[in-house]
Amino acid sequence: MVDLHDNNPPHQVVIIGGGFGGLYAAKALSKANVNVTLIDKRNFHLFQPLLYQVATGALSPADISSPLRSVLSKSKNTSVLLGEVNDIDPTAQKVMVGSEAVPYDTLIVATGAKHSYFGKDNWEEFAPGLKTVEDAIEMRRRIFMAFEAAEKETDPVKRQALLTFVIVGGGPTGVELAGAIAELATKTLKEDFRKIDTSETRVLLLEGLDRVLPPFAPELSQTAEASLKALGVDVQTKTLVTHIENDIVTIKQGDDVKEIAAKTVLWAAGVKASAMGKILTEKTGVESDRAGRVIVEPDLSIKGHPNIFVVGDLANFAHQNDKPLPGVAPVAMQEGEYVAKLIQKRLKGETLPQFKYVDRGSLAMIGQHAAVVDLGFIKLRGFFAWFFWLFIHIYFLIEFDNKLVVMIQWLWSYFTRNRGARLITGKEVVKPVPVESNEHYQPAKTRQPLNV
Amino acid sequence: MVDLHDNNPPHQVVIIGGGFGGLYAAKALSKANVNVTLIDKRNFHLFQPLLYQVATGALSPADISSPLRSVLSKSKNTSVLLGEVNDIDPTAQKVMVGSEAVPYDTLIVATGAKHSYFGKDNWEEFAPGLKTVEDAIEMRRRIFMAFEAAEKETDPVKRQALLTFVIVGGGPTGVELAGAIAELATKTLKEDFRKIDTSETRVLLLEGLDRVLPPFAPELSQTAEASLKALGVDVQTKTLVTHIENDIVTIKQGDDVKEIAAKTVLWAAGVKASAMGKILTEKTGVESDRAGRVIVEPDLSIKGHPNIFVVGDLANFAHQNDKPLPGVAPVAMQEGEYVAKLIQKRLKGETLPQFKYVDRGSLAMIGQHAAVVDLGFIKLRGFFAWFFWLFIHIYFLIEFDNKLVVMIQWLWSYFTRNRGARLITGKEVVKPVPVESNEHYQPAKTRQPLNV
Repeated sequence: MVDLHDNNPPHQVVIIGGGFGGLYAAKALSKANVNVTLIDKRNFHLFQPLLYQVATGALSPADISSPLRSVLSKSKNTSVLLGEVNDIDPTAQKVMVGSEAVPYDTLIVATGAKHSYFGKDNWEEFAPGLKTVEDAIEMRRRIFMAFEAAEKETDPVKRQALLTFVIVGGGPTGVELAGAIAELATKTLKEDFRKIDTSETRVLLLEGLDRVLPPFAPELSQTAEASLKALGVDVQTKTLVTHIENDIVTIKQGDDVKEIAAKTVLWAAGVKASAMGKILTEKTGVESDRAGRVIVEPDLSIKGHPNIFVVGDLANFAHQNDKPLPGVAPVAMQEGEYVAKLIQKRLKGETLPQFKYVDRGSLAMIGQHAAVVDLGFIKLRGFFAWFFWLFIHIYFLIEFDNKLVVMIQWLWSYFTRNRGARLITGKEVVKPVPVESNEHYQPAKTRQPLNV
Repeated sequence: MVDLHDNNPPHQVVIIGGGFGGLYAAKALSKANVNVTLIDKRNFHLFQPLLYQVATGALSPADISSPLRSVLSKSKNTSVLLGEVNDIDPTAQKVMVGSEAVPYDTLIVATGAKHSYFGKDNWEEFAPGLKTVEDAIEMRRRIFMAFEAAEKETDPVKRQALLTFVIVGGGPTGVELAGAIAELATKTLKEDFRKIDTSETRVLLLEGLDRVLPPFAPELSQTAEASLKALGVDVQTKTLVTHIENDIVTIKQGDDVKEIAAKTVLWAAGVKASAMGKILTEKTGVESDRAGRVIVEPDLSIKGHPNIFVVGDLANFAHQNDKPLPGVAPVAMQEGEYVAKLIQKRLKGETLPQFKYVDRGSLAMIGQHAAVVDLGFIKLRGFFAWFFWLFIHIYFLIEFDNKLVVMIQWLWSYFTRNRGARLITGKEVVKPVPVESNEHYQPAKTRQPLNV
């Protein structure tokens, strides 16, 4: 039993990662008699579920990000350290940030996941994924550059490839991306071009299983598919991607093999654990699963190291039913909060029952007007689902100024279908479009000389 | 005299550049019986006067940008072409975009200016300027990384250099940057760090002439200087920068030479004409001034080429008094609109009196609460000037959805002093900070082992 008088040197908690798991742990410890150091390689918390809105030009990165220091500025027991952890020493109880050693009494590892190409890492160049702000800006650049290039292209076959968007993976991110791109093409950009008809855009959503949104109830998958089709999305289930290279996606449906000519391919399929998983395995001997996720104990600690916890997408927690908990924000939040509570209990010499995830449901947005919500006891679709989706997402955006701005942006885009953030930025802004087949540029009508 | 019946092939106007000059020309031609092609290397119009708000984390790039296609979507006679013009052929009347030739009857060149280091181009690496969205994001990265590095630095001398910000140039951009950084340090970030006191930040504003805001009335320069000093900015006038290298700015004040140790140096001093100025000089024989600006005729055309116009920052128009018009947005807007009107008059066989700039005043913001406004007949300071500044800037933001969001962001930041967009993004996100002098990282208090 530890004496909790003020003159005691406080217990040191180190948290690696400022995503949902790490940040919710830190916030839940803000009034505890501990010192907290939160280490992240970025200076902001990112609301990842809305990244697809950045990728499709509806929101700006800052709208869905909150500076970690400002989220935690009132937690006076908490320091934020900007840096990347490259090693852990469980014996000396410290983590290494570059050449700096940061000592801990309790360690919470919450470094999440990155996208995985199932061993085909060369696909990344042709089919970028969506995990960081930079990913979203790159996706946004590709989407809007494709329309620009199509406007200049005179060869109808090449033009069709430029106006074909393939999204690999029919989970929430894939469904939301497909819906947003279809709306972009048929509504937002409709009046903007002079030579192409953007409503001829083809959006394909490829899913390996037999329905989109596999974690949802089957009837909601059907609703989602119907909503996507109403937006013009070509939904292909039971479809495997076997090859991706520049402009060509090869798919397999049963025994059929097909090639799709598409300039823009977006990856919303597999994820794998971040690099900290491997470090933990090497340094502590803990087991990990095929995706690199760390197998955790019922209290989210790792075997033989009761003062090291793993939460969020990096953890494989399979103590409720056989399947590990999914890599979604609510799981990470609840795990972070559980560990924070457990640390405080332990400091009093007490303990907690094992972690239990309370599933409050799943939800996904399809375009700007439809959504599906599966709360277990009730299933919502259409406008009410859309409104509920909006409410939940805004509610969980951490800082109020973001909430307000995002809400207004959404209400605005709901009524106008506008997407103001469709900036093409980045290193190669004007990537030269192949012009071999292009005639000299000809304005729509012939010219008339000016009398000066 | 030209016959204007509908079956006539329309007159082809090509505009290079979608800044204030080019965009206002295009908009003023939207109902005219001409075809317009607007060529820009970016797909958006940028509201440059607010770029400093992006650089200091108050606004996002998309808040001050409007997609050119959407601004011009209702101008059915106008096409937008994304690309960079690399040559002009005034004899064949065409411009080259890569290998594409775009023919014109009338050409409007509005490619603006970029920052100039007065021949010391190697300073750019140490003292970035502020002309593009990428510039602003790089400036934002440097500003916020400096605070992060200071938080980690244990050597007090190095820490002071990290907390020293030098802004070169006391024009509106320099004044606005200095005020914003001072407020950031003393207000926004005050509670965010645990080891540094951000209010010890030193912000220096260096100006070569004898007062800041030289184009304004002297009493407003005094007000601006007093407001800056109240915010803690160290204003140094009659100060020349003679050398910039990593961490050191060398200045000359009279005969005194001093060195300032500063990690972050921001350039808000000279500008020079964009590359199109040189192409025009070579291809048409038109004269240019020392800054590369093209000398224009009283009707903004260039000598010997009445169908080529230059407007905005690229033009040197000195027909009203001896001094050329300044490179500010109102000049560019009025020039663009004048040329649009002149083209329409010429098509009717008429003409216009020479261009005359109507100076409606100058304004600058100092921090979030003070501004100076010089309307000629009236001079405003303090809250009214701030409100007026806000109103004018919001009024001229091209698209309404941006206006609404920016207004709310501002009202919010006015009341909370928050700056939500302080993301550190870009290629080298976690630039390793030199740690030679650093001790091993030590949490604020000593540690207490956990009883598990």
